[in-house]
Amino acid sequence: MDIQTTTTTRVNTCKAMLLGLTKEFMTEFLGMFILVLFVRGSAAQAMFTGGAWGNLLTYNTGVTLGLMLAIYVAGAYLNPAVTLAMVVLRRLPLMKFPLYVAAQFLGSYAGAHVFYGLYYDALMAYANGVSRVTDANDTAHILASCPIEYTSVLNGFLDQVIGTAALIVGILAFTGENNRGNPKGLQPLAFSLIIIAIAVSTGLNPAPLNAAQDVSPWLFAVVADWGLDVFR
Amino acid sequence: MDIQTTTTTRVNTCKAMLLGLTKEFMTEFLGMFILVLFVRGSAAQAMFTGGAWGNLLTYNTGVTLGLMLAIYVAGAYLNPAVTLAMVVLRRLPLMKFPLYVAAQFLGSYAGAHVFYGLYYDALMAYANGVSRVTDANDTAHILASCPIEYTSVLNGFLDQVIGTAALIVGILAFTGENNRGNPKGLQPLAFSLIIIAIAVSTGLNPAPLNAAQDVSPWLFAVVADWGLDVFR
Amino acid sequence: MDIQTTTTTRVNTCKAMLLGLTKEFMTEFLGMFILVLFVRGSAAQAMFTGGAWGNLLTYNTGVTLGLMLAIYVAGAYLNPAVTLAMVVLRRLPLMKFPLYVAAQFLGSYAGAHVFYGLYYDALMAYANGVSRVTDANDTAHILASCPIEYTSVLNGFLDQVIGTAALIVGILAFTGENNRGNPKGLQPLAFSLIIIAIAVSTGLNPAPLNAAQDVSPWLFAVVADWGLDVFR
Amino acid sequence: MDIQTTTTTRVNTCKAMLLGLTKEFMTEFLGMFILVLFVRGSAAQAMFTGGAWGNLLTYNTGVTLGLMLAIYVAGAYLNPAVTLAMVVLRRLPLMKFPLYVAAQFLGSYAGAHVFYGLYYDALMAYANGVSRVTDANDTAHILASCPIEYTSVLNGFLDQVIGTAALIVGILAFTGENNRGNPKGLQPLAFSLIIIAIAVSTGLNPAPLNAAQDVSPWLFAVVADWGLDVFR
Repeated sequence: MDIQTTTTTRVNTCKAMLLGLTKEFMTEFLGMFILVLFVRGSAAQAMFTGGAWGNLLTYNTGVTLGLMLAIYVAGAYLNPAVTLAMVVLRRLPLMKFPLYVAAQFLGSYAGAHVFYGLYYDALMAYANGVSRVTDANDTAHILASCPIEYTSVLNGFLDQVIGTAALIVGILAFTGENNRGNPKGLQPLAFSLIIIAIAVSTGLNPAPLNAAQDVSPWLFAVVADWGLDVFR
Repeated sequence: MDIQTTTTTRVNTCKAMLLGLTKEFMTEFLGMFILVLFVRGSAAQAMFTGGAWGNLLTYNTGVTLGLMLAIYVAGAYLNPAVTLAMVVLRRLPLMKFPLYVAAQFLGSYAGAHVFYGLYYDALMAYANGVSRVTDANDTAHILASCPIEYTSVLNGFLDQVIGTAALIVGILAFTGENNRGNPKGLQPLAFSLIIIAIAVSTGLNPAPLNAAQDVSPWLFAVVADWGLDVFR
Repeated sequence: MDIQTTTTTRVNTCKAMLLGLTKEFMTEFLGMFILVLFVRGSAAQAMFTGGAWGNLLTYNTGVTLGLMLAIYVAGAYLNPAVTLAMVVLRRLPLMKFPLYVAAQFLGSYAGAHVFYGLYYDALMAYANGVSRVTDANDTAHILASCPIEYTSVLNGFLDQVIGTAALIVGILAFTGENNRGNPKGLQPLAFSLIIIAIAVSTGLNPAPLNAAQDVSPWLFAVVADWGLDVFR
Repeated sequence: MDIQTTTTTRVNTCKAMLLGLTKEFMTEFLGMFILVLFVRGSAAQAMFTGGAWGNLLTYNTGVTLGLMLAIYVAGAYLNPAVTLAMVVLRRLPLMKFPLYVAAQFLGSYAGAHVFYGLYYDALMAYANGVSRVTDANDTAHILASCPIEYTSVLNGFLDQVIGTAALIVGILAFTGENNRGNPKGLQPLAFSLIIIAIAVSTGLNPAPLNAAQDVSPWLFAVVADWGLDVFR
């Protein structure tokens, strides 16, 4: 090993680190983009067709398979709470946490944007081109989940804690050392099945388990409404 | 191998045995806790939303995936009848039987407790805060399964025998020596599919297949009702 | 190798052959028993509860998982047409064909018998204990599939040919030499998914794909009705 | 290696190439045949029974499992857009593209033909044997997908682009080099799950994702109507 080789190695290491960070950012971004596109699309299809081409089952199918596809494509955490758990468990360096979460929120925003373009005609037809802005609740249901009226703040908080705990326990059970020989290639399917299990049982309102999945589309909904309001 | 090493080994063996028993207890406890939380949660979600966010399908999904998750997390038997079968088949020492069953009943009770906290607001809203105690049937359906009226004792017994037999035969088929190369990591999924197969076909009333899953939440329901009665 | 060893080997071979034939018979018998119990049970549960605890989905789930469980437990062909195909493809000796088919029909009959016992109370409650015999169609729907009125004989025959062809092509695709590395342990699941694919698409009436599954319960229905008629 | 051996090898190579092309053609043909038979059959069963033996769920099940079966049996691309993507990615020689696409369209046409024979009685019964030709829309819904009224050309195009992009990204994620160890034998299942994910989320009208699957049956519908018109 002469000096030239060492220098080349160092430069390559530096490049590889930058490339690695970029790749990790893009991975979380792309995964959230796909996830939000599928989840919001499933919600919209069920709502717009009034049950004919979509219902609770197709919505849950879209969430499950969208998450599975997002993990297969990107292999990302796709959730700030899960990312935090990975930091606590020392599987992810603390310094990478802001990068991951930023990528998740931005990817989610981009996914909401493309979803909006994809369903623009349907949105206009559903809202008759007028009422969508004034009567904001209709689209709000598609772009962000709303808490149920009777849920108190304490109960909602408990709901989130238990749901997130179940998600993280489940993820650890599949990726831990004593994971019973579960094939690695099936982990994305397993993770999305855990999400569905939580969605049908420990929360009447599954979406907020994932802050990135929920906040960004809601932000986009506000921006999109303002944008349309301008042209009226 | 000198004496010191041997002594250390003995102490370690003793510690390991105690640790092993504690771990086996915690395993059954945690598994039942997760199982009951998901099963009762699915039942509650289907009932409270009146079909909008839950139905027979989401209930069955919750039972299947909750059981799958419980087995993946804990790798436990989660059922007194299955535990007994394992003792009879000499896969489990007889002396451990009481430990396992106790852990199952206690875990189930704890799961019912947390479920109750999680759905307290929804329970109150559903029952208008009043009728839940006097009209006990409503909550009884969520916390414990009730036999159908026309079923005779003999038929109910036959139902339990056939259902439990099918469950144990199915479990043995997946874990036996000539199990056709079924991947070990998919066994939890297979077990939960057997439960669903039994639930949709050989019994109109699936829950009592598992005494621990049924008795403890019912016991909790009685205790919870008394507790609330005091404050009226 | 002296003479004694050879003789022992011969006797053992003879014993093994007899044991093998008995095992193959029991395998087909047990598999059909489980299959019929689950399929008829799913049909009965969907009918008796009027949709509350069973519907088209639970019926299809019961058929899929019942078949999967039957193949996992028994590893059998469970279908005279499939058995015939295996003979034609020289995977099964012609001489074993009658043994297999007999086992399938007898297992199916036994399954119908136990199903009848299991659902006796529900059958009586559903038919008010009287009309079941005179108005035979009600129970006939549970114990045997009936052709749809507008289907001509030619169309029904075409239906059976295409359905059975699809089933055999699918089975060969999973068990053939160039099977793309499909894990052997998942073959039972794959076979039952093929059955569901055929059930939801190429036939309005899935059951008659399997003569053994259909004829024996129908025969039992006739016998059971006669038996009850005697006591009136 | 003498001359004779070399000549034999050359002839064999030539034969093998021709055989290879024929096999690839038959592979795409057979795969599309099976796919169209199952997809159209599922649509017909859901329509003809008015929900009793088929609904959105059985239709989606038929599409998923039909595609899975088609890929397991044939191992084919089954889609002109996917074939094109494979050419662009240099996984398939450009020269084979026309062969593949021709096989896909012809297989689809043949599948529509056999489907028509299989459901002839049901078609006649559904349309009372008369109105089917004049009121062409009824059968058009079964044999070809129709765009929804409010969708603009731009939105429809966007829909197709995003849907096809999601499909190809998903396929690459499962077959690429860093595919997380997903078992190869489960790829057909994964591909069909992607199709369902797209069907329930990013398009209100899933079928046109596949030109071959859509155009050929529509062409057949025109031909079939003409043929019947002649005999009136």
